[in-house]
Amino acid sequence: MSKQELIQARTPPGFRDYLPETMLHRERLMGVAREVYRSFGFSPIDTPALEYFEVLAGKGSEETDRQMFNFQQGKRHVAMRFDLTVPLARFVAQYAGQLGLPFKRYQIAPVWRGERPQRGRYREFIQCDFDTIGSTSVVSDIEMIQVVHQLFCALGFAERGFTIRVNNREVLSGLLEKQGLLDQSTVVLRALDKLPKIGAEEVAKEMAGLGLSTEQAASVLALADCNNLDELAPLVAGNERGEAGVARLRQIIDGAIAGGVAPERLQLDVSIARGLDYYTGVIIETFLNELPGIGSVCSGGRYDNLAGLYTKQHLPGIGASLGLDRLLAAMEELEMLDPVKTPADILIVYFDKDRLADYLAMGDTLRAAGVATELYPDPKKIGQQLKYADQRGFRFALIAGGTEFEAGVVQLKNLATGESQELKLEEVPVVCQSKD
Amino acid sequence: MSKQELIQARTPPGFRDYLPETMLHRERLMGVAREVYRSFGFSPIDTPALEYFEVLAGKGSEETDRQMFNFQQGKRHVAMRFDLTVPLARFVAQYAGQLGLPFKRYQIAPVWRGERPQRGRYREFIQCDFDTIGSTSVVSDIEMIQVVHQLFCALGFAERGFTIRVNNREVLSGLLEKQGLLDQSTVVLRALDKLPKIGAEEVAKEMAGLGLSTEQAASVLALADCNNLDELAPLVAGNERGEAGVARLRQIIDGAIAGGVAPERLQLDVSIARGLDYYTGVIIETFLNELPGIGSVCSGGRYDNLAGLYTKQHLPGIGASLGLDRLLAAMEELEMLDPVKTPADILIVYFDKDRLADYLAMGDTLRAAGVATELYPDPKKIGQQLKYADQRGFRFALIAGGTEFEAGVVQLKNLATGESQELKLEEVPVVCQSKD
Repeated sequence: MSKQELIQARTPPGFRDYLPETMLHRERLMGVAREVYRSFGFSPIDTPALEYFEVLAGKGSEETDRQMFNFQQGKRHVAMRFDLTVPLARFVAQYAGQLGLPFKRYQIAPVWRGERPQRGRYREFIQCDFDTIGSTSVVSDIEMIQVVHQLFCALGFAERGFTIRVNNREVLSGLLEKQGLLDQSTVVLRALDKLPKIGAEEVAKEMAGLGLSTEQAASVLALADCNNLDELAPLVAGNERGEAGVARLRQIIDGAIAGGVAPERLQLDVSIARGLDYYTGVIIETFLNELPGIGSVCSGGRYDNLAGLYTKQHLPGIGASLGLDRLLAAMEELEMLDPVKTPADILIVYFDKDRLADYLAMGDTLRAAGVATELYPDPKKIGQQLKYADQRGFRFALIAGGTEFEAGVVQLKNLATGESQELKLEEVPVVCQSKD
Repeated sequence: MSKQELIQARTPPGFRDYLPETMLHRERLMGVAREVYRSFGFSPIDTPALEYFEVLAGKGSEETDRQMFNFQQGKRHVAMRFDLTVPLARFVAQYAGQLGLPFKRYQIAPVWRGERPQRGRYREFIQCDFDTIGSTSVVSDIEMIQVVHQLFCALGFAERGFTIRVNNREVLSGLLEKQGLLDQSTVVLRALDKLPKIGAEEVAKEMAGLGLSTEQAASVLALADCNNLDELAPLVAGNERGEAGVARLRQIIDGAIAGGVAPERLQLDVSIARGLDYYTGVIIETFLNELPGIGSVCSGGRYDNLAGLYTKQHLPGIGASLGLDRLLAAMEELEMLDPVKTPADILIVYFDKDRLADYLAMGDTLRAAGVATELYPDPKKIGQQLKYADQRGFRFALIAGGTEFEAGVVQLKNLATGESQELKLEEVPVVCQSKD
């Protein structure tokens, strides 16, 4: 084989590898998401990477259609999933009878989009979704906020600060109805969506261009500007839909607080519409207080009918999605990620070449006590082995030679402080498991 | 949308969905594999689902080439990975300088093969691989066996029984060399590989057909039949390679036992060759004692040069792969999988519709105490809510109405026994976390 020309070792553009120092954190984040979702009774499911093209096509936006990796496999046209929501819709339609309702599921899996590769945009990324299907209850709305709140606390953002912006799409619809703008809602919302980018004045101009009166435009903008439930109510007063929307928002926020969500982390934001046509009820976006500019790291909301393309059964739902890779990039920027390259705590130095059986037994004892332990594979110079331990980020090196074996002890070297302790082997787990 | 014709909700042939009752177990198995790999210092990595076609083509067998899902993406020819070993080879070639050696990694990820769909054969399945790159030490050989042993103990097979069959490819090579058959080794090994299927007599006939003398064939078959190191040694006596191979096997087996592997779970089996040309040293296969017929559920071995197609650096390695989905099928057949559909312990019954805030707070309290808790979303009839809890497999239902709130207690109903206990809320986690 060595006579052949070498094949270049590289990944296709927009795809990337995860080395241990990144993957350890990525696995930790996925583990946290999994545990939080489970703690609320969401169950895991999985669906194939490949679906029939017809199942996926036309379900997202024009953009997702264009970006879909799809190909002919024999006589079948298949495609790689571009999100986890369309497969969920197909899934619940297919197994509706078997699953029972309400059905609460999470799915943590990669999705693929043929986006033009650019900084921070990749063609493969992990989504961490959770959804409740078959319930219109406000309990599910509240629970979505509880889950997101718990998730970011568990991920280490309790002290650094994060904000869950909450809206109810019905409030905006109510106002548009009250102002006689319901049949223009798509274009009005599209203009409103630009608010953070271009400001109120420019949005007002655009609305005037759409034929809205000054009063109509002002009322929409006043609503979008309102971040207080008590001020919100008068703006939709007299419109049934709007009033119900405000009442529900109040239930959601009160319920979330009763369920443990810190009030200062909730913020009413009537301007968020997310995807315009898709969401029909509550909508949330989540921002990191230290990095608001990266956008929402966890978004979701209520939708009226999930699987209408696949089944006649009306299936309302609610759920949110954690953008794992965006969050990981943010945590890197915030220097929240330790540069560790090993999941193990201890490296046993292979010191005395005649003591292999003892080192193997030590490793077994430590692992049985819950301490992840690696044995260096060769009896190389101790300096070389300690350098390896340092580079990998082991917390401790365990050293034992003739003297130690005779005395029935080991040397445990703390690699951060450089200090060594003489211990009995059974004392080592206690030291490792205490915070140092 | 409802006016359109419905799209049929289905997966392409050979692909399947995982419902909660299966996925909960699948996640558990992946979690166990992850923890065991980590406990020995293996670090996680991830690589893209899609690689350049040229990186994957011609690296497995003719069969894997034919089965590869590949397509043209713009001007690039890409393919979905069919295993995790070829991507690992590309990966270590690409980052060799950065990774440092020895490099120990695990990867748990789906792979895709366009096999003809049939019972038990799917086009998408999870592999759980661990490998050590850059070490020729016997410690890595021993460690592979320790990892597999620990893995199956942790998966619940300690009492049911499993057997790790161990071979060293060098023993066979030594014998072939001794018998002057080295240049025929591929065809001889191919004949030998049929031993479990067609028996010794037929294999001997086939070997005669290849031109082997009766004595040559008998010596190969005697070796394959030998399951004792002491009897093995004389068969290769006088051949350096064979003697070294036997000595190494002895080191491996002694070391594994010193490192905690139960001797009765190790079995010398010189007949296993696995893939003929690929492995160069120790080889293992793992069988479930109650279901030997399904074949090896975890196999691996030592290879001489992993990444020769991508780099001039000589990178020896050793590793094994757990066939997760095959194991899961086996565990189902052995009735080792509880039919549970929820990861939560408690369902809080939404009993009194005016007490939502209290139920939400209870859920938060229980979760904070480490008990996964779901709140039923609607104040439906209690019988309906308990039926839901039963169907999902919750262990407990928590019921509290006016009387309980007044007395500061809750009713905790054990859904397996039907018995209820009156408890203070703070006593509930203790009851849930004790084995009942």
